[in-house]
Amino acid sequence: MTTGTDLERARELDEADPLAACRERFVVRDPQLVYLDGNSLGRLPVATITRLADVVQREWGGELIGGWEHWVDEPVRVGDAIAPLIGARPAEVVVSDSTTVNFYKVALAALEARPGRRAMVTDRANFPTDRYVLEGLADARGLTIRWIEADPIVGPQPGEVASALDQDVALVTLSLVNYRSAAIADLAGITRLAHEAGALVVWDLSHAAGAVPVDLEGAGVDLAVGCTYKYLNGGPGAPAWLYVRSRLQGELRSPIQGWFGQRDQFAMGQGFDPADGIRGWLAGTPGILALAAVQEGVRMVAEAGIDRIRAKSVALTSYAVELHDAWLAPLGFDLGSPRDPGRRGSHVAVRHPDARRLCERLIASRVIPDFREPDSIRLGFSPLTTSFGEIHAGMAHLRELAAA
Amino acid sequence: MTTGTDLERARELDEADPLAACRERFVVRDPQLVYLDGNSLGRLPVATITRLADVVQREWGGELIGGWEHWVDEPVRVGDAIAPLIGARPAEVVVSDSTTVNFYKVALAALEARPGRRAMVTDRANFPTDRYVLEGLADARGLTIRWIEADPIVGPQPGEVASALDQDVALVTLSLVNYRSAAIADLAGITRLAHEAGALVVWDLSHAAGAVPVDLEGAGVDLAVGCTYKYLNGGPGAPAWLYVRSRLQGELRSPIQGWFGQRDQFAMGQGFDPADGIRGWLAGTPGILALAAVQEGVRMVAEAGIDRIRAKSVALTSYAVELHDAWLAPLGFDLGSPRDPGRRGSHVAVRHPDARRLCERLIASRVIPDFREPDSIRLGFSPLTTSFGEIHAGMAHLRELAAA
Repeated sequence: MTTGTDLERARELDEADPLAACRERFVVRDPQLVYLDGNSLGRLPVATITRLADVVQREWGGELIGGWEHWVDEPVRVGDAIAPLIGARPAEVVVSDSTTVNFYKVALAALEARPGRRAMVTDRANFPTDRYVLEGLADARGLTIRWIEADPIVGPQPGEVASALDQDVALVTLSLVNYRSAAIADLAGITRLAHEAGALVVWDLSHAAGAVPVDLEGAGVDLAVGCTYKYLNGGPGAPAWLYVRSRLQGELRSPIQGWFGQRDQFAMGQGFDPADGIRGWLAGTPGILALAAVQEGVRMVAEAGIDRIRAKSVALTSYAVELHDAWLAPLGFDLGSPRDPGRRGSHVAVRHPDARRLCERLIASRVIPDFREPDSIRLGFSPLTTSFGEIHAGMAHLRELAAA
Repeated sequence: MTTGTDLERARELDEADPLAACRERFVVRDPQLVYLDGNSLGRLPVATITRLADVVQREWGGELIGGWEHWVDEPVRVGDAIAPLIGARPAEVVVSDSTTVNFYKVALAALEARPGRRAMVTDRANFPTDRYVLEGLADARGLTIRWIEADPIVGPQPGEVASALDQDVALVTLSLVNYRSAAIADLAGITRLAHEAGALVVWDLSHAAGAVPVDLEGAGVDLAVGCTYKYLNGGPGAPAWLYVRSRLQGELRSPIQGWFGQRDQFAMGQGFDPADGIRGWLAGTPGILALAAVQEGVRMVAEAGIDRIRAKSVALTSYAVELHDAWLAPLGFDLGSPRDPGRRGSHVAVRHPDARRLCERLIASRVIPDFREPDSIRLGFSPLTTSFGEIHAGMAHLRELAAA
């Protein structure tokens, strides 16, 4: 009988994994590399290679300007492919621009829709770019940021949000999955509290989309953004998505009015008149090569099925927590992620005073996690490509380094 | 002896063209296609095919997250490659985001730097996305746009700008080359007038960069933007560039504060602290595949040399004007571009009451120009790939259609 930490058990888990074959649909150039950073940059789908060659050579090279007859719909088409993964309806998601630019657009649109209110609520442990955007908006508009000082391992709790809310709050914005600890916030509960106070919500789903099922519709979310280069496998710096709930698409307005958001774009007429629906939230010319890569990456997730992905993700992170408890805790590590898998996204942070040096040594020996200040090693598991054997190998090596 | 409209003359011009061989460095899938729209979407450089395959397979597929060690410098590195084409110094140009987003960033930064002033000056015939962005900023901040009603064929004149200027103007923004007529504005003269009134300038160089030599430094320009998918051959929706004069990089501040503009980005610390120099103007994660394509496209221009490109561009547009006068004017056409080649960019507009239908019929017979409301057929010449023979064939066909 195999026990929790035997290599044989990792093999059994891999053999029983219904998604094990997905890994073959991704490029794995070095089978010895233990890649525990698919939550920062997902692996390259094999299909993306031929798709990009086709977009470059046949579409750009052959169709030239005529390609725009179909390219013009790509931002909404790829958005529609993402929609079911996050509980959005068709024509509620559009892919273009970076997460930062999209976050700026929806956050500022929310502030403009609550003109008398002078405060925004977010979490001190929120992802840096979101905080920086909010700080810029606060400075420019003379607003206040009310910082929730949540325990990063637990994530922001509804009670903490409630304490920060009153009639002066225009916007509540949080990440659904904390980028460091993987703590999952209460999407529906916090959204409800914000709405009761008359505020709008913007959720950043960068560390959730493609790994954790999300129901934006059911939770009544107003606005959301997320990146596509993590669990959606869109490639380095792939364009991000932006969600605007249908009934808000006409009420709110993107602050960056560009020609791709204009109703009759190629009339090039006087006076901005936003296109109906989510298209009115586009700004400039979308990147067509990058959109094709996102479409292929999203297809991998859609075909595997988000519920199966979540089931494997829970199994992967639970396995890593077991190995942490057995191997690392005795060596002075602490778990930096929630123990309850229902409250945990698809990565696990392990904390150690010497985490930075250990992380450098792991990378030198071809085990790739992320270091996160001040003391976390973040082990990210991309359910389509990460094997239990990889987790076993990576954490066994971490144990060796820490014990040396 | 050949005359102005003989096919033989087009052949002689092509034979004498020192840049004729450049065309072989681009993909020409259908040699019969007459492509007169390289000013909307430049052709695909052959080198881009292998470069993109390499970035996708070796860098993304093989280096995975480790690629960021060098990718992080790509926006500035590609910006430095564009700099000599527009008279900028190293570390004054950065490539990321769309032209629209970049225009929003620099226009709003300029407005923030002139807080007491309530007006912006631009041209009614300016490119739509620039106008739409300005309208959005005017609405949001309660500012006025002072519209110059310039003759689009002549372009905005210094005297017209001067009439719109006073101590209440924060920003003057124009396109250097008009997207419809190709009229070149007086970069140095208008910049000087704006500065004398205490305003800042933003120039849109989308229809100039890579075709018309520009001296931003010499003209004292504060801020500029431009796209890379026209004469710089970066591909459909390729990321745009943004220029901030060195001495303004610390004084002005990007309104979209993101993690790629943060001084110590991966510390992920509290409080936005912009990186020194042009890097502080980045916002979100830059698109790495697209940046590689831009780099290859820009390389084509740099290797041919902007002065040789301009010389050929003048010859191409002058030839088109000759053919217009000989063939089209007798059929009821008017020239929609300046006659003086020194005041003309790299395209020529010909105007006809039936332009829309003629343009559709040209495209149906594989001659590809642009239609521009209400009555212009825009014939765009990309000096690295457009031949005199193509102009001859395309305009001969237009004459046939118009005479039928």
